[in-house]
Amino acid sequence: KHSFNIAVIAGDGIGKEVMPEGLRVLDAAARRFGIALHYKHIEWSSCDYYATHGKMMPDDWKAQLAGVDAIYFGAVGWPDAVPDHVSLWGSILKFRREFDQYINLRPARLFEGVACPLANRKPGDIDFMIVRENTEGEYSSVGGVMYEGTEREVVMQQSVFSRHGADRLLKFAFELARKRERKHLTVATKSNGIAVSMPWWDGRAAAIAADYPDVRWDKQHIDILSARFVLQPQRFDVVAATNLFGDILSDLGPACTGTLGLAPSANLNPERSFPSLFEPVHGSAPDIYGKNIANPIGMIWSGAMMLDFIDQSGTVGRQAHDAILAAIEQVLADGPRTPDLGGAASTTDMGKAIAAAV
Amino acid sequence: KHSFNIAVIAGDGIGKEVMPEGLRVLDAAARRFGIALHYKHIEWSSCDYYATHGKMMPDDWKAQLAGVDAIYFGAVGWPDAVPDHVSLWGSILKFRREFDQYINLRPARLFEGVACPLANRKPGDIDFMIVRENTEGEYSSVGGVMYEGTEREVVMQQSVFSRHGADRLLKFAFELARKRERKHLTVATKSNGIAVSMPWWDGRAAAIAADYPDVRWDKQHIDILSARFVLQPQRFDVVAATNLFGDILSDLGPACTGTLGLAPSANLNPERSFPSLFEPVHGSAPDIYGKNIANPIGMIWSGAMMLDFIDQSGTVGRQAHDAILAAIEQVLADGPRTPDLGGAASTTDMGKAIAAAV
Ligand SMILES: CC(C)[C@H](C(=O)O)[C@@H](O)C(=O)O
Ligand SMILES: CC(C)[C@H](C(=O)O)[C@@H](O)C(=O)O
Repeated sequence: KHSFNIAVIAGDGIGKEVMPEGLRVLDAAARRFGIALHYKHIEWSSCDYYATHGKMMPDDWKAQLAGVDAIYFGAVGWPDAVPDHVSLWGSILKFRREFDQYINLRPARLFEGVACPLANRKPGDIDFMIVRENTEGEYSSVGGVMYEGTEREVVMQQSVFSRHGADRLLKFAFELARKRERKHLTVATKSNGIAVSMPWWDGRAAAIAADYPDVRWDKQHIDILSARFVLQPQRFDVVAATNLFGDILSDLGPACTGTLGLAPSANLNPERSFPSLFEPVHGSAPDIYGKNIANPIGMIWSGAMMLDFIDQSGTVGRQAHDAILAAIEQVLADGPRTPDLGGAASTTDMGKAIAAAV
Repeated sequence: KHSFNIAVIAGDGIGKEVMPEGLRVLDAAARRFGIALHYKHIEWSSCDYYATHGKMMPDDWKAQLAGVDAIYFGAVGWPDAVPDHVSLWGSILKFRREFDQYINLRPARLFEGVACPLANRKPGDIDFMIVRENTEGEYSSVGGVMYEGTEREVVMQQSVFSRHGADRLLKFAFELARKRERKHLTVATKSNGIAVSMPWWDGRAAAIAADYPDVRWDKQHIDILSARFVLQPQRFDVVAATNLFGDILSDLGPACTGTLGLAPSANLNPERSFPSLFEPVHGSAPDIYGKNIANPIGMIWSGAMMLDFIDQSGTVGRQAHDAILAAIEQVLADGPRTPDLGGAASTTDMGKAIAAAV
């Protein structure tokens, strides 16, 4: 009865290398917990597809995804062949918007056995969750150029925020903070410099906060907040941020835990009106593609988050998630490790070790 | 003949505590190098002034600054009394725009004797310069709200870039990189997510780069760039960024060198049509104000940058700058230190030690 349909999109670059390891570990967990996973492998949403079709996706892409419970996504982008904004707006950013995956959940956690780039930090000092708005804000294609091609050229870029968008994000973040031990929420802002949207955003945070008297919260400007990720990472529990600020913080946070290669993400449509999408935080990394040295943990951990989310019974999915996390912890503590973690193991070695530990 | 008029604006909070130390060190350097500094102390551009006048500056503020060679600025902001965007758009952001201080130069450098929050980094590993656009871009008060006060509320925030603004910033950054040993420039972008302004910005960088074949340059998205400040800080030499990205990077960079308390900045109008402004990167820090524990080095180093800039002869100003930097290095290596550096010295102690070393 625990049976799910998963669309599998490996995409570009190291997406193609980490995906097999993600599937290997999913299969191991599925076997152990009696979950049936039906994969639908998809070739589009990649720059290879673009090369032959002149677009990132077929016109019937939504129809092809009908009945899918989740999308398991590697990485997309191959800037030498397709400009980033074309490949990304044509794939991952399109999924986020058209499937209204308005929550982008991104944990940052320091593991035993991983060398921390911050001095004197131990596991437990860094363990927080970034809740990134994923559908609006600074990521916008609204705007244009005046006096184009002349010395007088002026470019206007619109950021667009809605109360609908801000409130649901902030509510999700407060709910999450409420469930955690420390019950603390930091809201990223820049209301001292960005004069229209950000003071308004502060106002929405204060309005939503009124319903959560049990959650301690504060707002911090993105500049000092970034500095504090380095100087006082133990101070963070849940961090809510707009699309752009969440993007920055969710690379910076994992960097402080040793490597971006670990970081997973869940692009959620909490109402389940559309499939949610699970992908590592890292990109397609053309510079290391083809060597089989990419760290597969971001992909694998994303798979764990996927099982947890799709199983609404809250039993086997949660158990499978926890088992995968435990396997990741175990391999990080004393198993094979990829070069980004100071080891010499391959992507495949690490994936196999984690699958075995599950 | 080396005689300059300096407007002194201590401003709010710890601005009032670090300013006396900045002046103490300036005076020591001026004596040693035969420079005459005439100070004009200004009470406005502070939240105290706002409390009695209902505005941050008098109407004749420009007239009051006529004949001034530079503005030496502490910090502004007291959010409990005046909303940040009001105090800041009424003071520091106004200076930057109305005096066309389009370059914000912000060094990040790891000193001997300062505990680095990054593991295994030594002086020399972090030594770069951020060149931040300071007058346009994401810092904008253009925009507005539709359906205000309703569930349908939509907020539009315009970022405004000009070819004039981008090109002069990028040229300055390439010129600076050309003069440095490593001749390397990193241009911060986010053209994969912000679809109108940032691809355009990339295009301007490529266009300007064509005139600097001797400078190695690359562009990096702000998310991964922030991560690399932590993971590979030695890779940076000069970093050019828009207003917002420069703001973030210039808190993050100094954080990686131990404390924001060290970081200076120069808000330059390179053409000298208007006075330039020199201020520490840190803000008014209400949480530590009144204890005389703020680190005065950001203020003092900003003073050194000021002397270097205002003396167009390129002799005494440069010498005074170097002497102050040497004094800072000496005191950091074995002098009194404020709590942010792990010591117990006061702001005054540290200022006196640096002045004595000059
Ligand atoms: C106070 C604030 C408006 C200012 C900015 O964002 O520019 C500050 O953070 C800075 O970096 O000088
Ligand atoms: C590839 C890019 C558009 C994307 C983003 O900026 O959202 C990525 O950096 C991420 O964080 O998922």
